[in-house]
Amino acid sequence: MQNFEYWNPTRILFGRGTTDRVGWECRKYGERVLLVYGGGSIKVTGLYERVIVRLQEAGCSIFELSGVQPNPRISKVREGVDICRREDIEVVLAVGGGSVIDTAKIVAAGARYDGDAWDFFTGKGVPKEKLPLGVVLTLAATGSEMNRNAVITNDETGEKLVVKNPVLFPDFSILDPENTFTVPREHTVYGIVDMMAHVFEQYFHKTPETPLQDRLSEGIMKTIIEYTPKVLANPTDYDARATIMWCGTLALNHLIEAGVVGDWATHRMELELSGVYDIPHGAGLAILFPQWMEYVLPLIPQRFAQFAERVWEIPRNGRNDLELGKMGIARTREWFREIGAPLTLREVGIGEDRLEEMAERVAQRGPIGVVKVLTKEDILTIYRRSL
Amino acid sequence: MQNFEYWNPTRILFGRGTTDRVGWECRKYGERVLLVYGGGSIKVTGLYERVIVRLQEAGCSIFELSGVQPNPRISKVREGVDICRREDIEVVLAVGGGSVIDTAKIVAAGARYDGDAWDFFTGKGVPKEKLPLGVVLTLAATGSEMNRNAVITNDETGEKLVVKNPVLFPDFSILDPENTFTVPREHTVYGIVDMMAHVFEQYFHKTPETPLQDRLSEGIMKTIIEYTPKVLANPTDYDARATIMWCGTLALNHLIEAGVVGDWATHRMELELSGVYDIPHGAGLAILFPQWMEYVLPLIPQRFAQFAERVWEIPRNGRNDLELGKMGIARTREWFREIGAPLTLREVGIGEDRLEEMAERVAQRGPIGVVKVLTKEDILTIYRRSL
Repeated sequence: MQNFEYWNPTRILFGRGTTDRVGWECRKYGERVLLVYGGGSIKVTGLYERVIVRLQEAGCSIFELSGVQPNPRISKVREGVDICRREDIEVVLAVGGGSVIDTAKIVAAGARYDGDAWDFFTGKGVPKEKLPLGVVLTLAATGSEMNRNAVITNDETGEKLVVKNPVLFPDFSILDPENTFTVPREHTVYGIVDMMAHVFEQYFHKTPETPLQDRLSEGIMKTIIEYTPKVLANPTDYDARATIMWCGTLALNHLIEAGVVGDWATHRMELELSGVYDIPHGAGLAILFPQWMEYVLPLIPQRFAQFAERVWEIPRNGRNDLELGKMGIARTREWFREIGAPLTLREVGIGEDRLEEMAERVAQRGPIGVVKVLTKEDILTIYRRSL
Repeated sequence: MQNFEYWNPTRILFGRGTTDRVGWECRKYGERVLLVYGGGSIKVTGLYERVIVRLQEAGCSIFELSGVQPNPRISKVREGVDICRREDIEVVLAVGGGSVIDTAKIVAAGARYDGDAWDFFTGKGVPKEKLPLGVVLTLAATGSEMNRNAVITNDETGEKLVVKNPVLFPDFSILDPENTFTVPREHTVYGIVDMMAHVFEQYFHKTPETPLQDRLSEGIMKTIIEYTPKVLANPTDYDARATIMWCGTLALNHLIEAGVVGDWATHRMELELSGVYDIPHGAGLAILFPQWMEYVLPLIPQRFAQFAERVWEIPRNGRNDLELGKMGIARTREWFREIGAPLTLREVGIGEDRLEEMAERVAQRGPIGVVKVLTKEDILTIYRRSL
């Protein structure tokens, strides 16, 4: 086990009806609220109206930053920072999924930073404080509701980068599973792939002796596998939605990585992919992950064998680690197919043309991967095998 | 799944060498430190000296509250509160196990309370704030290092009571597994029984549809079962001590109870037992738990069957839930015996005489248990079967 620091101060309000607490929870931090949301689906579902009413009841003045897109842009962040400064915003409230939350995080930190918020991503600046931040989660996927990460795309350069900083923990997050009842099948699936991929990144590693971390990760993966069919069969199954939602949060709230060194190469390759091509993050992960797994399998066969045995319950039957590990990867690919995720780049309309340029850029951004530090050639091979 | 709120702001510094950070971690909060510890074993191991040196290096003034006993007393708490007031203490630092940490929690809260700290336990008063509190953990057991609970005994009345309040979260806890290398076998075992019992309390419940919580609890239990022999065989096995330590923390840091309603009847019966007889908490739990399990088995047979199958890997082989559950309980008792825990009250020198009086008192303190709300008769039966 590695030494670690674990700290997570986000307050989680989980369950049916917790949405109605949004007004007074915001009011604890201030009166002037910037409501951040996406393309307007919350207006269709009635959530927008419900949040507005609760904020008004609590005596909040409401300002809006709407139109946050998937693969959210720094230009939208800058728009939000301008509103915060101009209107003396006291609380930022994200109502949405990972894109909206990440935008709100950087808006909240950018408003308290003397410079351009893109600096956080290039390393030119570091967030030191932020405006208070609340979340009403509408999509189980990224875990952003309870972590210190944010991913933003620069619309000028096409770069999609991550910043990680304890300042970025939301102060509170409302996780009301009923708010995910209306998520379309496709996005439910991408969200599930995303959370599964988060566990993969922290489970396939080279840190010795991490038995508890392994069990916790395996528990999350098995639960996701067991409950995905329930959610897809019946999108308004409360307990299934609740279970998937809590899985998504625990998959990336720093708990299962405490004591291990995660890999994260696949995420880095995917961020480049969806930064350039604007495909859903979950789609890119489903395509790339099985390829990465096969590529590094010979380096940690015992870990893939454990995955096959414990998560997929594939019996050993005299197989060696490599054979068993291979079967675990094949089963993972099959499962992605079963739940409706794409498995090749061509399926999402991506061809050969820009792969080399992308591999070059990913490699340039410094060491990528832990199980294997990937060179440009490695990355290009994985991209090509994903065609 | 039940609605829940989850919040845990304690910072964990985990790993080899983290002990040396104690000085500057305290100094962040203040300069005048009250060092709380037990019977002096930390002087024998050299930990006392190491902590003192680090505190001095960081420029702290050190005051001491020593001699905290197992089943810690309110009289010792009052002594600590007096020192805090008299010496303008700015930080309380617990160096020890659960008894020391619980004492330090109530000292830190009592110092900021206008009245007697026992009020927190009788409900006469509520802790509203506390002095900053740090921990250097020396025994993996209670989870107090990362939770909001404290258990204190009133030496005048023999009452052993719990208080739970978010104010009581430590601000930081140093978990250095090397500090547990010297824990004697007997106390290592009691600590392990305690953490296992914490998982039991939160696993054997009646809340429907808690698949993720189940998997997390099962993961902790399986890890404890797998690593206990390693720790007992080689007390200086770093990874084994580290694993058991992190199990103890996660067993009672509010994570696995998020979404369920735990039972806690056995803990209530045990607190009465060790309050009256001053036996180790872990010993009392090993004696009472299998009896409670058998008593409530018919009410939740499917949960005990799941426990038998998933935790003890007992194959179903056509058995019904009741039969399988029974085997899981028998295996638990056998395991307690294997690791060296007592199984009967007589083994720890307790006879029939005060059982009725104790059952009476436990029952009087209001509803006890969730799987079955236990009457005085139920409690007495469980006590008697434990003879």
